[in-house]
Amino acid sequence: MSRRNKIYEGKAKVLFEGPEPGTIIQYFKDDATAFNAEKKGTLAGKGVVNNHISEYIFTALADIGVPTHFIERTSMREQLVKAVEIIPVEVIVRNIAAGGISKRLGIDEGTPLPRPIVEFCYKSDELGDPLIAEEHVLAFGWADEIELEEMTHYALRINDFLSGLFAGIGIKLVDFKLEFGRLYEGEDCITILADEISPDGCRLWDMKTGEKLDKDRFRRDLGGEMEAYQEVARRLGILPNADI
Amino acid sequence: MSRRNKIYEGKAKVLFEGPEPGTIIQYFKDDATAFNAEKKGTLAGKGVVNNHISEYIFTALADIGVPTHFIERTSMREQLVKAVEIIPVEVIVRNIAAGGISKRLGIDEGTPLPRPIVEFCYKSDELGDPLIAEEHVLAFGWADEIELEEMTHYALRINDFLSGLFAGIGIKLVDFKLEFGRLYEGEDCITILADEISPDGCRLWDMKTGEKLDKDRFRRDLGGEMEAYQEVARRLGILPNADI
Ligand SMILES: Nc1ncnc2c1ncn2[C@@H]1O[C@H](COP(=O)(O)OP(=O)(O)O)[C@@H](O)[C@H]1O
Ligand SMILES: Nc1ncnc2c1ncn2[C@@H]1O[C@H](COP(=O)(O)OP(=O)(O)O)[C@@H](O)[C@H]1O
Ligand SMILES: [Mg+2]
Ligand SMILES: [Mg+2]
Repeated sequence: MSRRNKIYEGKAKVLFEGPEPGTIIQYFKDDATAFNAEKKGTLAGKGVVNNHISEYIFTALADIGVPTHFIERTSMREQLVKAVEIIPVEVIVRNIAAGGISKRLGIDEGTPLPRPIVEFCYKSDELGDPLIAEEHVLAFGWADEIELEEMTHYALRINDFLSGLFAGIGIKLVDFKLEFGRLYEGEDCITILADEISPDGCRLWDMKTGEKLDKDRFRRDLGGEMEAYQEVARRLGILPNADI
Repeated sequence: MSRRNKIYEGKAKVLFEGPEPGTIIQYFKDDATAFNAEKKGTLAGKGVVNNHISEYIFTALADIGVPTHFIERTSMREQLVKAVEIIPVEVIVRNIAAGGISKRLGIDEGTPLPRPIVEFCYKSDELGDPLIAEEHVLAFGWADEIELEEMTHYALRINDFLSGLFAGIGIKLVDFKLEFGRLYEGEDCITILADEISPDGCRLWDMKTGEKLDKDRFRRDLGGEMEAYQEVARRLGILPNADI
């Protein structure tokens, strides 16, 4: 790691310059944070598992025609991706009420929503990623109308695909977070899926037991975080090996 | 007041059955609340001033073609209005950052917004009127797409008109809150402006001095609430008389 230029260190990953211009290495750390880094911890092996889960999902999404930044996994903790300009708007898709929406709107956790709800949050740790409306996105120029439409369209397709993927392995996809970025290609600028998809940014409930297989185990001090993340990887058939 | 049927007592007004079916009397109290009734007080004469200011504004809005519930003022504290089914979505229009948006998005109070921003909040005292997106309004059926469009359209027209009205009397319209309702007429259902427009639900800054002429004086313990409300009424040329 030493001879490469570090571009950015975030809460869960480090970005390094990639081998080619326009590429980046995402290095997955074991650091866990919640409530905008008010709560911190380390989950030994999380980076390895998330790197593999995210590889699996991004590859599958590319197969159904969702454009993503993913190029290839290059090691246990690293993946090569296309460098993008991150759109500072987190996209959340919710199928069942939990977390933020339950608290804000007074809906019991576990209540199925009348339909999938796509939410936008302003990506800002200092402000706690506040919920915003399309109105704010457009007024402040964080994204334009076409980008909002594309992000919503892809988010709903990803929701359908992942709902099926997880249903097939006995897991209910409750909600998840996405980040998109701008990829400039000559004159063109396209919107592609970036960042990661892993139990860090999803709520995943075992269909039989209701057990949480996601970061809520860490947020709510339930313990067994790594067992849960590994269980997701195992069911997806991608656990790298026993000794992560 | 005793022989009439009280329909509802809210934080600032009481609703009584009106003389005709489909009508309601809005009685304006002197009660003041802030932060969803965590802070309470009484401002002697507020009800009288707000009743008159709201009458003035609703009459002027009808003149420019905005449909409203207002029929006529019937006494110092009362007005007759059409009964509507209130849409549980508060509509906020913001021209300058202040209050909620400043805190949520980290924008200094007083910063002009790039364009007027129309926000929706879910009308719920228990939940603190949380900001929502159109997505939530539609998913939970709080209003339909046509109603959202109409509310937005009227809100922006009202913003233009009130910005002009207040500019004419040396006051900057920073932001304001609206409520709309459904009026059923035979087969039809139309969206009309309801509730009130007064310094209780607007931010109004004196253009020369920057002095606040609205409920922020109460929220922030600045004192001189009634003098400020009366000053607004006086500049509008509608102060009922000295001894309210
Ligand atoms: N393809 C990409 N190009 C550039 N930046 C990216 C790309 N994918 C993800 N990012 C950004 O890299 C960072 C990933 O590290 P992370 O630990 O998740 O950071 P953060 O604490 O900001 O969420 C995020 O800020 C994310 O927006
Ligand atoms: N034309 C109308 N028909 C029926 N209800 C109305 C009408 N105009 C306003 N309302 C409702 O009457 C109440 C007015 O009293 P208020 O003290 O403002 O109540 P609140 O504490 O609920 O805001 C509000 O709940 C408002 O939504
Ligand atoms: Mg992140
Ligand atoms: Mg009210």
